[in-house]
Amino acid sequence: MKATILYGPRDVRVEQRPKPTIQHPTDAIIKLAAACVCGSDLWPYRGTDAVADPIAMGHEYCGIVEEVGADVTSITPGQFVVGSFFTSDNTCEICQAGYQSGCMHREGINGSQAEYMRVPLADGTLVATPELPPADKIPSLLAASDVLGTGWFAAVAAEAGPGKTVAVVGDGAVGLLGILAAKQLGADRIIAMSRHADRQALAREFGATDIVEERGDDGVQKIKDLTGGYGAHSVIEAVGTQESMLQAIRATRRGGHVGYVGVAHDVSLDGQELFFSHVHLHGGPAPVRDYLPHLIDLILNGEIDPGKVFDLEVPLDQAAEAYQAMDERRAIKALLRV
Amino acid sequence: MKATILYGPRDVRVEQRPKPTIQHPTDAIIKLAAACVCGSDLWPYRGTDAVADPIAMGHEYCGIVEEVGADVTSITPGQFVVGSFFTSDNTCEICQAGYQSGCMHREGINGSQAEYMRVPLADGTLVATPELPPADKIPSLLAASDVLGTGWFAAVAAEAGPGKTVAVVGDGAVGLLGILAAKQLGADRIIAMSRHADRQALAREFGATDIVEERGDDGVQKIKDLTGGYGAHSVIEAVGTQESMLQAIRATRRGGHVGYVGVAHDVSLDGQELFFSHVHLHGGPAPVRDYLPHLIDLILNGEIDPGKVFDLEVPLDQAAEAYQAMDERRAIKALLRV
Repeated sequence: MKATILYGPRDVRVEQRPKPTIQHPTDAIIKLAAACVCGSDLWPYRGTDAVADPIAMGHEYCGIVEEVGADVTSITPGQFVVGSFFTSDNTCEICQAGYQSGCMHREGINGSQAEYMRVPLADGTLVATPELPPADKIPSLLAASDVLGTGWFAAVAAEAGPGKTVAVVGDGAVGLLGILAAKQLGADRIIAMSRHADRQALAREFGATDIVEERGDDGVQKIKDLTGGYGAHSVIEAVGTQESMLQAIRATRRGGHVGYVGVAHDVSLDGQELFFSHVHLHGGPAPVRDYLPHLIDLILNGEIDPGKVFDLEVPLDQAAEAYQAMDERRAIKALLRV
Repeated sequence: MKATILYGPRDVRVEQRPKPTIQHPTDAIIKLAAACVCGSDLWPYRGTDAVADPIAMGHEYCGIVEEVGADVTSITPGQFVVGSFFTSDNTCEICQAGYQSGCMHREGINGSQAEYMRVPLADGTLVATPELPPADKIPSLLAASDVLGTGWFAAVAAEAGPGKTVAVVGDGAVGLLGILAAKQLGADRIIAMSRHADRQALAREFGATDIVEERGDDGVQKIKDLTGGYGAHSVIEAVGTQESMLQAIRATRRGGHVGYVGVAHDVSLDGQELFFSHVHLHGGPAPVRDYLPHLIDLILNGEIDPGKVFDLEVPLDQAAEAYQAMDERRAIKALLRV
């Protein structure tokens, strides 16, 4: 089968690899409906995260179950499923508290930018749709497996909701879907921080009421100006750099909430600044599994269309172009036709 | 009047100073019922916080209102009042959200280790008792003004409550009263981290069910051993050092809550560790004003006795001995008779 392999900085190749097989009785094998490139894939692509050996890329996925291991009881071949980038048993205390991405038995997913993939802990990780979805829902269901689920978690962690002003740092797919999530959660006002016209347009479509183009201290000041000097009640951080984290913390009012989902890179937080900021800080890998049933419903009922973040579509063979387009910010998010 | 002045590291003197007067129409002058030394006073006492000029010490207080400014409407001379270490207007959006210590017009309190003090923003800062309290309630009411309110905030920030296991890092007055607060909030199990017999005894009296003497990584492992490998649901951090913050974060289960109230000193948090810890992190200066009405009720009804943290009592003249005893950990908390 075809699979996308990263050999080193900016060296992505689509190669023939053996089709995965059941390794454990709790595994499932899935035939992918489509694949895509994540903003977090750019960290190793750019060399920010070192890559020692060639790695099979991709952790976002949906598709048809091809085969299941002997112990899998709730998922059956032929079903259409969506899963999360961390597997989960969905039974441990962490899972039961809604933090499946922190499952005591979690494994990270790799290799979904391919024709087939193996998903461990299938029962606790995969969510099946009621019936096979129409083709036009595939991009949105694929988005649910990470960027939508991650934006949703950011909005939940930032306690977006009625009466709240939410600011969003980061205009990638996760930030944009954080806007969609904040809107769904009932936020009164949503401020997108973006200086790209195409992303601003999508931000408004997803529910942003204001756009702030300034960054850093200027961006923080603009948020304060828009909120009576207090800062936003809720701030979503969807980048993962020192600058974006500080921008998020400083744009939040005292007692407010920062939901951070950008995978932190070289971020170091000064304890005293954090102490006096008075913010609630919560984030990490999103417990997508917890939100999937609800997100799938919203998508299949036509209430949300997160698939709009895909503004580039190429065949799997051209994965390298998909990476390059996202790296150069020519594309928000690239879908790979399998 | 007599006032306690810090001149430099370990140089505390009680001197004659002018009795404070009304400076603004929103001020009140209070005759202190008693004074005390705070764990945070030890930072400048030890020279960790530099002291450029001599400073009037003390930010915990209760006493009788002697005089009020022309604009003060809710507080009258002759009332017994308790206040917080940050003044608050109690009307701005931050105050209304329950974060009075983050009030947009807050001022820090100084000079309460004295016979009289001036309290700005009296209406929004002070809470009067229904009638003059009996003398034996004074230590508890004094504790409410900071250490109890701060321990309470830590427990609230850590989301201590029914069904929860709470671990407490720090066995000073704030940590011990964090235990009392967790108990009041209904926590199932409370693990005190302490290696001092006298503090362990008080911890148990306040509601601790388990004691862990180990620190650092060993202490973290012990908490995990006691919680099925998961870590505590809620962890109170009441010290403010790098070691104590990491101990608190690492002892918390994924998805759990850290409430930190130790004033952070040279603390730097690695973004990636925080991200993957999956904890909720919240803390800062406690909004004591928000809790005071409830805490005063609990004290006057005899439901709690936080004044037990005072294990040394000396006349105000001997403030230097009070500082030294706390510095040398001979005393948990020292009360100064005014």
